[in-house]
Amino acid sequence: MMAACSIGRISTFDARYPLPPGAGSDAVHTDPEYCLAVTRLGSEDGGICGTGFALTLGAGNRLVCEAIELLAKPLLSRPIEDLMAEFGHVTRLMADDPMMRWLGPHKGVVHLALASITNACFDLWAKSRGVPLWRLLLDLSPEDTVRLLDLSYLDEVLTEREAVELLRREMSTRADREGMLRTGYRGYDTSVGWMAYDDARVRDLTKRAMDKGFSAFKLKVGSIDQSRDLRRAAMLRECVGDKGTIMFDANQQWTLPVARKMCGELAKLKPLWIEEPTHPDDLMAHVALAREIAPGKIATGEHIPNRVVFKNFIEAGAMHYVQADCTRLAGVGEFLAVSLLARKFNLPIVPHVGDMGQIHQHLVIFNHVAMGHEALFLEHIPHLRPHFAFPAQVEGGYYRTPLEPGASCDLSGSERSCA
Amino acid sequence: MMAACSIGRISTFDARYPLPPGAGSDAVHTDPEYCLAVTRLGSEDGGICGTGFALTLGAGNRLVCEAIELLAKPLLSRPIEDLMAEFGHVTRLMADDPMMRWLGPHKGVVHLALASITNACFDLWAKSRGVPLWRLLLDLSPEDTVRLLDLSYLDEVLTEREAVELLRREMSTRADREGMLRTGYRGYDTSVGWMAYDDARVRDLTKRAMDKGFSAFKLKVGSIDQSRDLRRAAMLRECVGDKGTIMFDANQQWTLPVARKMCGELAKLKPLWIEEPTHPDDLMAHVALAREIAPGKIATGEHIPNRVVFKNFIEAGAMHYVQADCTRLAGVGEFLAVSLLARKFNLPIVPHVGDMGQIHQHLVIFNHVAMGHEALFLEHIPHLRPHFAFPAQVEGGYYRTPLEPGASCDLSGSERSCA
Repeated sequence: MMAACSIGRISTFDARYPLPPGAGSDAVHTDPEYCLAVTRLGSEDGGICGTGFALTLGAGNRLVCEAIELLAKPLLSRPIEDLMAEFGHVTRLMADDPMMRWLGPHKGVVHLALASITNACFDLWAKSRGVPLWRLLLDLSPEDTVRLLDLSYLDEVLTEREAVELLRREMSTRADREGMLRTGYRGYDTSVGWMAYDDARVRDLTKRAMDKGFSAFKLKVGSIDQSRDLRRAAMLRECVGDKGTIMFDANQQWTLPVARKMCGELAKLKPLWIEEPTHPDDLMAHVALAREIAPGKIATGEHIPNRVVFKNFIEAGAMHYVQADCTRLAGVGEFLAVSLLARKFNLPIVPHVGDMGQIHQHLVIFNHVAMGHEALFLEHIPHLRPHFAFPAQVEGGYYRTPLEPGASCDLSGSERSCA
Repeated sequence: MMAACSIGRISTFDARYPLPPGAGSDAVHTDPEYCLAVTRLGSEDGGICGTGFALTLGAGNRLVCEAIELLAKPLLSRPIEDLMAEFGHVTRLMADDPMMRWLGPHKGVVHLALASITNACFDLWAKSRGVPLWRLLLDLSPEDTVRLLDLSYLDEVLTEREAVELLRREMSTRADREGMLRTGYRGYDTSVGWMAYDDARVRDLTKRAMDKGFSAFKLKVGSIDQSRDLRRAAMLRECVGDKGTIMFDANQQWTLPVARKMCGELAKLKPLWIEEPTHPDDLMAHVALAREIAPGKIATGEHIPNRVVFKNFIEAGAMHYVQADCTRLAGVGEFLAVSLLARKFNLPIVPHVGDMGQIHQHLVIFNHVAMGHEALFLEHIPHLRPHFAFPAQVEGGYYRTPLEPGASCDLSGSERSCA
């Protein structure tokens, strides 16, 4: 189970999956292809293939693959257990590659590449130990967990010692939260409300999702015709009733003045949150909105590139729901660092699933059981299910706890192996 | 002079220039190569070649070239005058390419690519009119200038109307500032104080630069051994005397607690500014530092990717000197948008010269004459001089006003043409 496993081969795969018409569309991504920039780490004996990926939406996917090839070189020949014993340090060295960091730093193509590499390392590690990622993480000591993380530039808010103490504190109540491993983790459905779907389609898909057990739904807003947003939003509320949970997602489309107006209008429908109301870099605009739309809530994070920007948004009160994504951040490690930050500030983590939930289904288990995060729900987007060897099992509206070894990143069929 | 000129050919060039030992080194970029991701736009008749570039520091330069090839496609066959008549709109379409924007948005490799493309458009435009870029810009009406700019997401701080009014207001006093075209624009020397240079080298280079007419100098700090920083800083102050101007540049190396301590120590030497004291994404840390080190001043910007983040830093009081760089921002256009923001908030613009000053020597003229910005000084880094067809002429410590048509981006020798 713990046989020595070194990285013998590093390769990338530019996986592109066209979507059905309208699927995945939002206010700014009008015609996406779901593409995965895949990292594959083959063990030296050829017996194990660690797979990780980052999401992109089309043409530039190969840029991320090329960045992976440049950044991952130092991992070759390294035993995975040695890497993971100091993975915070390993990650930081790659993130601060003296020639590549100018291209970020810690954002954009190079950081997406780091996400893909990091996720592959975690997958290889869990497979080499023969356990699902969530199990591996739950079995680590607080000290070993924190050594996985690069907490640099968080010093004034979260030191390594505080992180260890936070994890240790939650140890005593873990058993109370482990029941979730049996019940599964609630999902919410994003795929009912894509931007290009017409009203009848949204209504039909929502009803079908309710029949399947979902009770929370997201709708894309940010239409050029604002009355279209309001009509669709009211329709969704009517469709799910007062007890259903709805969220609206503007995908960065609005300027601050428009966001003020639209958040005010949409608040009447009592959404749980309004997501990406304006430009994702605009901390001050989010702070202003958060204050003005109270008790309305803001969710954001799918375009927040790193823990430093999350620290700013969290500290400044610019977000209420932390939508960290381990395919935007530098993989599992930075996702966990942001989860610790959110826990310290008592904000819920509701991942954006650039991974279609494959890796995050492991991470929300860890966040709930080991960190004491509320088990709110996890986004569900089904469009890539046929392309995964072990697609997330969502039944009765709940993600079933994954049991296969690794981080559930394997692709299906001939795309699965490291060969 | 105003013959119709359409873009007949788009190509890229991955230019890499190794540096002499130690040159260009700082706290985080230990062994840089200066690389230019070059865009070339050939006119349909083959008579004119517009050249633009972004800087990178090594291995990833070709990623930017590939992003340019993906992003620039819509420019093919377009007449340059048509493009520049609505260049704000043109830029925004490229920045928001629905498939590519996931890789940013508006940051990292795709935004560096946009910088290179945009700069090439301005070069082609000025060459097609047969004038230097600064002359072309000074001859535009306020309305035509503002149509060059994408001011989206600045609405609550700077509308198009306000931008036009700001430029119109400065018209009446332009003549008072045009003397600078004859005297030149003062330079400051960064190349005396690279991180890897030993004390004797720094002292020797500073003295030589003083002999050449420079009176302002920058020193790299952020050494692992903090006493080395303090020793070198004191040496530089002694070398230039009380009347010389010195600046210290930590290149993002310090965490907030370390920055607090080091800024306090270094303040005793009365630097004009301390540059990049911590992570460039950390708005709140800069706000805290700016408050705590007063009357000390913070300069930052070379890693601030776009106008939205600059808006935040400027509005929040996180910076005193705005080091916008048209090879980091989306080229000349976004540089001018940030210059307008800075003017509105009465902050000086002191560009970081990822272009080695080639393009910025034009832009600081426009900023001073047309916007009323103080003519403080412009960074000077000489290492790439042999590689430019028209290297900036710095004499007696002053940049001479460039007279060749275009934006001074042409490379020298066989690398010059679009062929």
